[in-house]
Amino acid sequence: MEDDYILDLAQRAKRAAGILASSSGKQRTEALQTMARNLRSQAEQIIEANRQDLAAARKAGLSEAMLDRLGLDEGRIEKMAESIEQIALGVDPVGQIIDGWTLPDGVVIHKRRVPLGVVAIIYESRPNVTSDAAALCLKSANAVILRGGKEAIASNGAIARIIRQALKEVGLPEDTVGFVERSEHELVNDLLKQEGLIDVVIPRGGKSLIRAVVENSHIPVIKHYEGICHVYVDAGAELEMAHRIVMNAKVQRPGVCNAAETLLVHAEVAEEFLPSACDELAGAGVELRGCERTRKLYRSVVGVASEDDWSSEYLAMILSIKIVSNLDEAIEHINRYGSGHTDAIVTQNIEAAEDFVARVDSASVMVNASTRLSDGGVYGLGAEVGISTDKLHARGPMGAADLTTYKYVVYGRGHLRQ
Amino acid sequence: MEDDYILDLAQRAKRAAGILASSSGKQRTEALQTMARNLRSQAEQIIEANRQDLAAARKAGLSEAMLDRLGLDEGRIEKMAESIEQIALGVDPVGQIIDGWTLPDGVVIHKRRVPLGVVAIIYESRPNVTSDAAALCLKSANAVILRGGKEAIASNGAIARIIRQALKEVGLPEDTVGFVERSEHELVNDLLKQEGLIDVVIPRGGKSLIRAVVENSHIPVIKHYEGICHVYVDAGAELEMAHRIVMNAKVQRPGVCNAAETLLVHAEVAEEFLPSACDELAGAGVELRGCERTRKLYRSVVGVASEDDWSSEYLAMILSIKIVSNLDEAIEHINRYGSGHTDAIVTQNIEAAEDFVARVDSASVMVNASTRLSDGGVYGLGAEVGISTDKLHARGPMGAADLTTYKYVVYGRGHLRQ
Repeated sequence: MEDDYILDLAQRAKRAAGILASSSGKQRTEALQTMARNLRSQAEQIIEANRQDLAAARKAGLSEAMLDRLGLDEGRIEKMAESIEQIALGVDPVGQIIDGWTLPDGVVIHKRRVPLGVVAIIYESRPNVTSDAAALCLKSANAVILRGGKEAIASNGAIARIIRQALKEVGLPEDTVGFVERSEHELVNDLLKQEGLIDVVIPRGGKSLIRAVVENSHIPVIKHYEGICHVYVDAGAELEMAHRIVMNAKVQRPGVCNAAETLLVHAEVAEEFLPSACDELAGAGVELRGCERTRKLYRSVVGVASEDDWSSEYLAMILSIKIVSNLDEAIEHINRYGSGHTDAIVTQNIEAAEDFVARVDSASVMVNASTRLSDGGVYGLGAEVGISTDKLHARGPMGAADLTTYKYVVYGRGHLRQ
Repeated sequence: MEDDYILDLAQRAKRAAGILASSSGKQRTEALQTMARNLRSQAEQIIEANRQDLAAARKAGLSEAMLDRLGLDEGRIEKMAESIEQIALGVDPVGQIIDGWTLPDGVVIHKRRVPLGVVAIIYESRPNVTSDAAALCLKSANAVILRGGKEAIASNGAIARIIRQALKEVGLPEDTVGFVERSEHELVNDLLKQEGLIDVVIPRGGKSLIRAVVENSHIPVIKHYEGICHVYVDAGAELEMAHRIVMNAKVQRPGVCNAAETLLVHAEVAEEFLPSACDELAGAGVELRGCERTRKLYRSVVGVASEDDWSSEYLAMILSIKIVSNLDEAIEHINRYGSGHTDAIVTQNIEAAEDFVARVDSASVMVNASTRLSDGGVYGLGAEVGISTDKLHARGPMGAADLTTYKYVVYGRGHLRQ
């Protein structure tokens, strides 16, 4: 863009970050509690803004699913407020001494957790990301710049205004939470160029959004790509348990990244396991697409899986199924076609479990548990920034602590380099 | 490039990384010891290759300083071997359980350190980087692709061949250490595009090399930028100690990133401290460039500092000096002009020390110690990949453990998501 709109926003965020870095945890907790209170008391303003977004979205012909994601009511705003209160209750990561030691000559070294500085979050339609992201960044004493989807701009703007007001009330800078109020597409590229001011960019949304951010960013990006998650039923599996895990991983909530997309079954147990499992899955409404061996076993219920199926994140009631000859083939399949998100083995064989854990290259590896457990809330990390499919900085579920870095603090008594 | 040279190298590294991920620490230690032994016993081959590089470099008219960095002799090769042995002796980061807990329903979660996968290191003239980087990556069970400077290509190639031979001797894949044997410039861009195969790129060298890598990489980069390091002499400083620290930080080894470039002095002690400090520095051969206030105090020895001086990494016997009115001004100056590498305060005042530590946004913050102590070896991290000026993933001195990521390992007994 030709104007300095984003530059100005980034500079103000950077200044706010400087002040936040020496704020107390008490002050930040108070700000979070005030945010939650004000969201509740000013819910009507948010709902009013949301009506504008919904009207525009209907006019633009958005799908019912999109409209549902976009819509806000008292109940959803209450959930946003509760989520902020949960974050307020969590452990404060800032200032934690995560390591420390004393050198032989008496120099004392602390490794101290400190905020990253300024975080930019680029997201799509759901307005609750506005409050969640703002709260997680404030918890970790970061300033944040929020760029939401165009279709939610009025709702997001109303939420951001209420949050900024709450910050002001407790004496913290409003610019702790910056919001891109204009919707031009080029502003995203402006944002991605502020490498001296913004420390990290986190895109949350579809693959094409993430790809565009990675390609254009001069700032480090933490990516939250798709989840092509597997359940592998080993020869040593307790088949009753395998049934329950496969059903839960596929059916409990198929539209999310930690739901299973592919079932791998050891040839030795395929004949015993697959027919009843397929019946149960099909009975629950799951479309099954199998490899040749699977189809030989149970052609009536199982359609054909093509090569593309192995690398598809359906996010829907579809499951691909493959029979493998051994553990090695299962691991190779997962490392080749998976997305490194979450993969599970079902087995009572301790060596198979440990081999699987050691060799599957994924953020979360589950033994005898559903892939659906891969979640910051379930793991006890508190509210989640997202699930990182990157290996650098943060991998898997990202909590507030993952929005920090550290500094080495070195205490000498006139120590010199020899 | 039109051929698949780099793609092939990256694919081979990825395969090697898969094997390394399940290698034992014992095997990797053995490989490191064999490397060190073979470098010693085949030193003559390296020296012979180095002669070719030196001859070409002289013909190309490289400076004496460059020739000195490039040159290898028995002594330098012995140092390379010793460095590998040090790395072999260090703690094995792979497989460390860095955190772990049990959920209320009995699910057990481990956070386990695992290798990143494939690391690419792009560096300039010094051939010892070849052996250091290979050893650090092997220690952390990563495969590595090395791309050294054109002027050292024969020496680096000889070192890489000896290392690959050592890997083979102990039964690990030779492709653990890949070496770009061709020197075309475009190969670097090919390397930076292998985002499915290479997990991280670490450029080591001058600012322009790093900038070019950041701008062209589709792969996450860990940057090792310059060090514009400060020593701040506070009103509460013990001036005798301040003298020693300033001298050590500037003079002990001025050509490295953790040497001081700017001295900040509190106005209250400037008159007492600066004249003798300037005399001592000037006596040691340091060129001094001061702000107006400094020059008023001691014009005979101190030249003029321009605005550019505050953001210059001299890497030479030059020091800029500024008198500041208070601690705040010192901190603001450092956060504005510094590079976030290493900054020191000299003070006996505990509150000034803690304010400085909290508010200076640098990888290492020293209290009553020389900036020269900011070093992986000094901190006890073992050999150093470099000193990261990034905030993501690794900040400050990077050891072998910083070449790892983690995975969540989740043990259930048929646990499902409710």
